[in-house]
Amino acid sequence: MSTFNVELKKVVDDSYEIEIGYDLKSKLVHDLEGGLVGKTKKIAVITDSNVRDLYAKEICEAIVDAGFSLDLFVFAAGEKSKTRETKAMLEDAMLEKGYRRDCAIIAIGGGVVSDLAGFLAGTFARGVPFVNYSTTLLSAADASVGGKTAVDTALATNLIGLFNQPKKVYIDVETWKTLPERQLKSGMAETIKHACLANYEMFEFLEQNMEAIYALQKFPCEYITENNCRIKYDVVMKDELESGLREVLNLGHTVGRAIETVSDYQLLHGEAVSIGMAAQVQLSARLGYMSEEQAERVIALFDKAGLPTKIPEYIDREALVKKLYTDKKVRDGKIRFVLQKGIGEVVEFSPNVYSTPIEESVAREIIFEL
Amino acid sequence: MSTFNVELKKVVDDSYEIEIGYDLKSKLVHDLEGGLVGKTKKIAVITDSNVRDLYAKEICEAIVDAGFSLDLFVFAAGEKSKTRETKAMLEDAMLEKGYRRDCAIIAIGGGVVSDLAGFLAGTFARGVPFVNYSTTLLSAADASVGGKTAVDTALATNLIGLFNQPKKVYIDVETWKTLPERQLKSGMAETIKHACLANYEMFEFLEQNMEAIYALQKFPCEYITENNCRIKYDVVMKDELESGLREVLNLGHTVGRAIETVSDYQLLHGEAVSIGMAAQVQLSARLGYMSEEQAERVIALFDKAGLPTKIPEYIDREALVKKLYTDKKVRDGKIRFVLQKGIGEVVEFSPNVYSTPIEESVAREIIFEL
Repeated sequence: MSTFNVELKKVVDDSYEIEIGYDLKSKLVHDLEGGLVGKTKKIAVITDSNVRDLYAKEICEAIVDAGFSLDLFVFAAGEKSKTRETKAMLEDAMLEKGYRRDCAIIAIGGGVVSDLAGFLAGTFARGVPFVNYSTTLLSAADASVGGKTAVDTALATNLIGLFNQPKKVYIDVETWKTLPERQLKSGMAETIKHACLANYEMFEFLEQNMEAIYALQKFPCEYITENNCRIKYDVVMKDELESGLREVLNLGHTVGRAIETVSDYQLLHGEAVSIGMAAQVQLSARLGYMSEEQAERVIALFDKAGLPTKIPEYIDREALVKKLYTDKKVRDGKIRFVLQKGIGEVVEFSPNVYSTPIEESVAREIIFEL
Repeated sequence: MSTFNVELKKVVDDSYEIEIGYDLKSKLVHDLEGGLVGKTKKIAVITDSNVRDLYAKEICEAIVDAGFSLDLFVFAAGEKSKTRETKAMLEDAMLEKGYRRDCAIIAIGGGVVSDLAGFLAGTFARGVPFVNYSTTLLSAADASVGGKTAVDTALATNLIGLFNQPKKVYIDVETWKTLPERQLKSGMAETIKHACLANYEMFEFLEQNMEAIYALQKFPCEYITENNCRIKYDVVMKDELESGLREVLNLGHTVGRAIETVSDYQLLHGEAVSIGMAAQVQLSARLGYMSEEQAERVIALFDKAGLPTKIPEYIDREALVKKLYTDKKVRDGKIRFVLQKGIGEVVEFSPNVYSTPIEESVAREIIFEL
């Protein structure tokens, strides 16, 4: 018996820049000319059937004008397209067009596009550079930091995928103007959640500037986008050292995820999270982690954002309580919640554990009252 | 316009050990108990329909006896199973059995198993630990170092996949005894190739010990396995610094890959490489990089190993010449060969370029004479 040691220790630098602004296509072209994706001149743009005509075609034209060779690959818009089958379809289309090692991928769209294209880029020729051009508030807050990419399968959400960092992310606030109002509001739910868990000042800013954000005014939109990135980054980075912190991003998601499923996806993710946040602050107030006034203030902000804070009549509350037990935070058969400590902080239940076990009877009371 | 910098610089240590020996299952169990794959007790073993009864079941029993929970996932043996569809089928089977983030994967088999299982492990829950238990000479030489994992598609070989390093590799020389003779010899082709490109002493050793290796004697088998790992490692490591060196592993593969395809895979990969090596040394001798005697000595070693060194009668030589142009080394429409410089070295055509452009007329002559 003998052994051979494969030494593979090295410094990896996956750092990248997030650019936040209005109509960033000329910036993108400029960066590509400057070598953002290396020497390749062959670019696959991946987008969905909604974003194609709204933004992708125009961006593609600008890239082609700069002398790049490019093909546009489109899949049907919607969460239902986030599958291994769509990924394979796009891969085959790229191979058919002669794409091999020497190419780069640009994702243009929201979270579904960046999840799918980021995963595809990570396994195409064992990894080609990719760039993310975000066109939704939700993906600005959520998909731009953390490097998580994945597809869904019948049996599991977001379980087949990988960590893959983009070369750069562009958050084009201008594109939010074509988002359906319900989608924009849904994206706002995660923004308010971020403020609640990490930044009281941002919470106050949202109270004072909600109309200005919805009117897509420059300063407030850039302010919330930067803060969304900052909060997500701080949590994700610290989590690499003291694993467990990432759980705080689950604030409002215990009831939120459950109600999203029980509503059979009639509620958008952000709407469900908004209701989940309302349940969470009630619970946090009841347990003495925040005052009644603070809880009401959080709920008032979700109301102001045009988001639901009551459980709709058509939801079976018994089914909802039962559903809580499928939450990924459940441990030893016990439901757990991430809870707020006032506004701008979360409860650390024990060192590095940010979820608190809750008696079913207490959760039930909150749910039946909401 | 504003920017946010995501700093992601860190030290990554993917180092691992390759254990070479006879019947390593108790060593594997011992390592698992020692925390090789972390704290998880949930292990998915992936193997093919040939290896299942030969080795996998027995290894699984030993692991279960040690208190691990385990399921065995089997796919149909053969290169044709190395697809996205097989990967999806295995993923669904694992999800169905309740496998989530908290598991580890052990691949037991040859190159197809490790390629498929290594890729699957890299994208299951965004990456779970995996271990490679190699049962063929070819995968001992080829699949144990470098971290390349992939599947094939109708349009491309090994193009969808990723770099994923195992936690440990076990090369169980005992398992070679059940390899069909043709497979064992085919694996020897890559071993001789390694000696030709990097190690004259190993070449002499092979000349003197071919019978002993085929009789699976302990010392010579361990010697060639260690040297295979060493050579592959040196090439792959250096390639990370001065990209281009990895190309030397393509020695013998210009004609080899082409003839493999033109034979419609009647020739095994190693058989095709053996013929490709014969063509390559003729060419190297003709261009003065090695003597006629050295070329004959290389061909004699492939003969001694029971490998073909002539192009079979049924091969259409015109089709073969044409096929050379689909080689991945082709640049500016010119065929390129990696060439030997004597025995144990390769020709560096220009700094960091290890393939040499060859006139079609010269390649044609060699092919029609072989």
